Amino acid sequence: MIERVDIRILKKPEEVQLKDPVLVEGLPGIGHVGKLVADHLVKVLDVVKVAEIYSHHFPPQVMVNEDGTIRLPKNEVYAYKGERDLLILVGDFQSISNEGHYELVNAYMKIAKMFGVKRILTLGGYGVGRLVEEPYVIGAANKKELVEELKSYGVKIEEGEPAGGIIGASGLLLGAAMLEGIEAACLMGVTSGYMVDPKSAKAVLEVLMKMLNIKVSTEDLEERAKEMEKLIAQIKEMQEAAVQQYRGDEDLRYFR
Amino acid sequence: MIERVDIRILKKPEEVQLKDPVLVEGLPGIGHVGKLVADHLVKVLDVVKVAEIYSHHFPPQVMVNEDGTIRLPKNEVYAYKGERDLLILVGDFQSISNEGHYELVNAYMKIAKMFGVKRILTLGGYGVGRLVEEPYVIGAANKKELVEELKSYGVKIEEGEPAGGIIGASGLLLGAAMLEGIEAACLMGVTSGYMVDPKSAKAVLEVLMKMLNIKVSTEDLEERAKEMEKLIAQIKEMQEAAVQQYRGDEDLRYFR
Amino acid sequence: MIERVDIRILKKPEEVQLKDPVLVEGLPGIGHVGKLVADHLVKVLDVVKVAEIYSHHFPPQVMVNEDGTIRLPKNEVYAYKGERDLLILVGDFQSISNEGHYELVNAYMKIAKMFGVKRILTLGGYGVGRLVEEPYVIGAANKKELVEELKSYGVKIEEGEPAGGIIGASGLLLGAAMLEGIEAACLMGVTSGYMVDPKSAKAVLEVLMKMLNIKVSTEDLEERAKEMEKLIAQIKEMQEAAVQQYRGDEDLRYFR
Amino acid sequence: MIERVDIRILKKPEEVQLKDPVLVEGLPGIGHVGKLVADHLVKVLDVVKVAEIYSHHFPPQVMVNEDGTIRLPKNEVYAYKGERDLLILVGDFQSISNEGHYELVNAYMKIAKMFGVKRILTLGGYGVGRLVEEPYVIGAANKKELVEELKSYGVKIEEGEPAGGIIGASGLLLGAAMLEGIEAACLMGVTSGYMVDPKSAKAVLEVLMKMLNIKVSTEDLEERAKEMEKLIAQIKEMQEAAVQQYRGDEDLRYFR
Repeated sequence: MIERVDIRILKKPEEVQLKDPVLVEGLPGIGHVGKLVADHLVKVLDVVKVAEIYSHHFPPQVMVNEDGTIRLPKNEVYAYKGERDLLILVGDFQSISNEGHYELVNAYMKIAKMFGVKRILTLGGYGVGRLVEEPYVIGAANKKELVEELKSYGVKIEEGEPAGGIIGASGLLLGAAMLEGIEAACLMGVTSGYMVDPKSAKAVLEVLMKMLNIKVSTEDLEERAKEMEKLIAQIKEMQEAAVQQYRGDEDLRYFR
Repeated sequence: MIERVDIRILKKPEEVQLKDPVLVEGLPGIGHVGKLVADHLVKVLDVVKVAEIYSHHFPPQVMVNEDGTIRLPKNEVYAYKGERDLLILVGDFQSISNEGHYELVNAYMKIAKMFGVKRILTLGGYGVGRLVEEPYVIGAANKKELVEELKSYGVKIEEGEPAGGIIGASGLLLGAAMLEGIEAACLMGVTSGYMVDPKSAKAVLEVLMKMLNIKVSTEDLEERAKEMEKLIAQIKEMQEAAVQQYRGDEDLRYFR
Repeated sequence: MIERVDIRILKKPEEVQLKDPVLVEGLPGIGHVGKLVADHLVKVLDVVKVAEIYSHHFPPQVMVNEDGTIRLPKNEVYAYKGERDLLILVGDFQSISNEGHYELVNAYMKIAKMFGVKRILTLGGYGVGRLVEEPYVIGAANKKELVEELKSYGVKIEEGEPAGGIIGASGLLLGAAMLEGIEAACLMGVTSGYMVDPKSAKAVLEVLMKMLNIKVSTEDLEERAKEMEKLIAQIKEMQEAAVQQYRGDEDLRYFR
Repeated sequence: MIERVDIRILKKPEEVQLKDPVLVEGLPGIGHVGKLVADHLVKVLDVVKVAEIYSHHFPPQVMVNEDGTIRLPKNEVYAYKGERDLLILVGDFQSISNEGHYELVNAYMKIAKMFGVKRILTLGGYGVGRLVEEPYVIGAANKKELVEELKSYGVKIEEGEPAGGIIGASGLLLGAAMLEGIEAACLMGVTSGYMVDPKSAKAVLEVLMKMLNIKVSTEDLEERAKEMEKLIAQIKEMQEAAVQQYRGDEDLRYFR
């Protein structure tokens, strides 16, 4: 039986004993910026999985692993004990329905409160519709003081940006936390919005490390960023070639 | 935890002691006419907020304020004590799902009854698909006597108009109130339907003031109406220029 | 408070004392054939309203009457005592969501059982995508014996028609009734599917009268059929004129 | 009353006394491959129906049989006692909503557990977007050991295929079973995805028979496969003729 929103606690708070943990959320979204950062943390830090979330609001399917085994769409919460204790929320999907976003965020808040979370940092991308050479990080928070703190870490606060609001878990978590009196901020890496963007993710990770006073390797993201740049260069070349070809073909077209 | 429809009472009825209040609803809609009027009342009257409504039926996002803080989509109810006591319902959004409209209207009715509302006036726009030089107000009500009263205030009752019915909270509230035996009318400012229309809002506000026997400044709406007229003039100029340009370019086009 | 599916009983079964009533359903649908017939019965027979149904599955709006009063979307059930007792189900809308159809049909069945209904006749149109000069009636039933009875009244049973099934209340009621052991048939007037079709409705009404052994005037439907035929003739003329015009304009077009 | 997910048990587990049954699922999907196989088993094996499932997640309609009687959309579960006991899940539709898939899979799991199912085999098609001359079977499973077993039966495990995951009941059942500790695999016949594919179904049936150590006639599927091949040949001819015709007409076109 998979409940509508199905929280499965694998480790109880008393088993992991976190001290004032910060919840870091990085679910799929624009440029997968938030997901890249949070997945990276889970990979490089010594974490333990404390919860899984299944939901009717995820796509009705399973994914197939390379070895032919399957996995059900889920979100996961990992605990990290270190200089600064963390809960890291990662996952395959966000809700595919509007109401589902609210129901899932309620689940995230429930887990956050269960583990005594005092601050929430959500991670995402901010799509600007053009290639971004030097990505930077913009931010928003559910408390004036936290906005100031963001600025002190070099995060840009652009008047009323993103203009369309912050959509999905990264935004709603800030609002839900505000109602519960928990401070929360969102870090958004500026990105084109057209493709997965590890370079933007690296920019977000760097701010995050400063805010959490944690130091992790960023090598992995750098490598992926280089691969992505090669790919972009190739795509550009192919596009140009295609345009040439198209012009050359023009006189020969029978049909539109 | 944000409930599906989440009513948060900030001031109890006994704290504000309203006498037979009129509920004035002005949520976003055609030309934002209703919203402009209701927001204006909240701004210029000495009101106190009595309730907030959050809902899974609002968009799953937060909005970002100019200072970088965020706010969750919500509706708000304000109380006003004066010559005529009012409850004013304003907000960021209406429901984004069909059923949600019914669920939210149930919430509005619950609050209305809690505060002893005896009459409901809903405000909206009536889109006619062309620029309207001299906006006027059309109306409908859930009771024959109230239709007559509307006429006495200069509100036009056009046979079976709006033909498509009154959609959203402004309409449903009239129906839900009818089932509860509460009289309710809708005032609709005629508007193009293409843009925010403060001029139409002013026309509605003038009728509303007469009906409520309340006098407030309309300066703010007048100013915004003037700005809007300038904007429209500019858009027209730009469109004409664009058409000229397009015609001039025609011979040079390589592709469809 | 409007419930998700909100049944309001106005007259209890013991107040109207129906004997083995037949439930006749005629809600909006293809060519409004079923609605035209059922509305006609309510108009010409001496009926009493026994129930109203409101629902979150109807459009979130009110309709405006000619006198400026409003009405909430609803379905209604009328009782008729005569040679043959009837319950007549009419209304403004069917469900606008898929699940809503099932929930509303559950409500109709609940009312049917409350009033001791022994047989259900649902009415609809069968759209064939071309103008139909001489409409006839096709049928289907939830019981072999009833299919035979339909044939004896001149109803055509076309192998596996309608091929796409019978959609909405007219179909689902047959299925839901089958699960409850209540016999039910659907009468479908063949119609173009492009417009309201009183001529097809008349064909259905004639079969229905024979099946119910009830005789009512069909004058009203005949008149509306004549008006509709005039309208069709006018539309045809206008279309032809438009085509002529279009061809004449062709050489003058600047833009596609 | 039709419940949201309405399980109707026709034979209790103690009435059919299955020993460690395998649940075989074949609902409509790509190329109707799974449905063809499961329907075939129900036809050629000596089965007894143990459950029917109705649901608000199926289309809101009834289907019309050739004799004019109707049937409500449903899924059915049949029991087979033989060398290897089976539960066979077949049906008219899958859910038409996303959440509905999860709710229906919960129902299937409930029935599976009620009858003591120890293994689940789901059947489907894998659309490759081109005609497939020699269909083969690819697979996935919710357990490494079962993947190996699939390979031993000639099922191909292609790295991370299907890339888009396995959508609907065939996929979700594997995931839901994993959460319950029940082993489950999916057999997918490679198919074009453009039409019903009995040839692909035959390939799946052959693997299934080996896995279940059951032998049934495949004649029926072979015949349908031949008919389908004739049909494809005809369509190809007609397409070619249409293209010729179109080219010939070209010079005569007045309008785009």
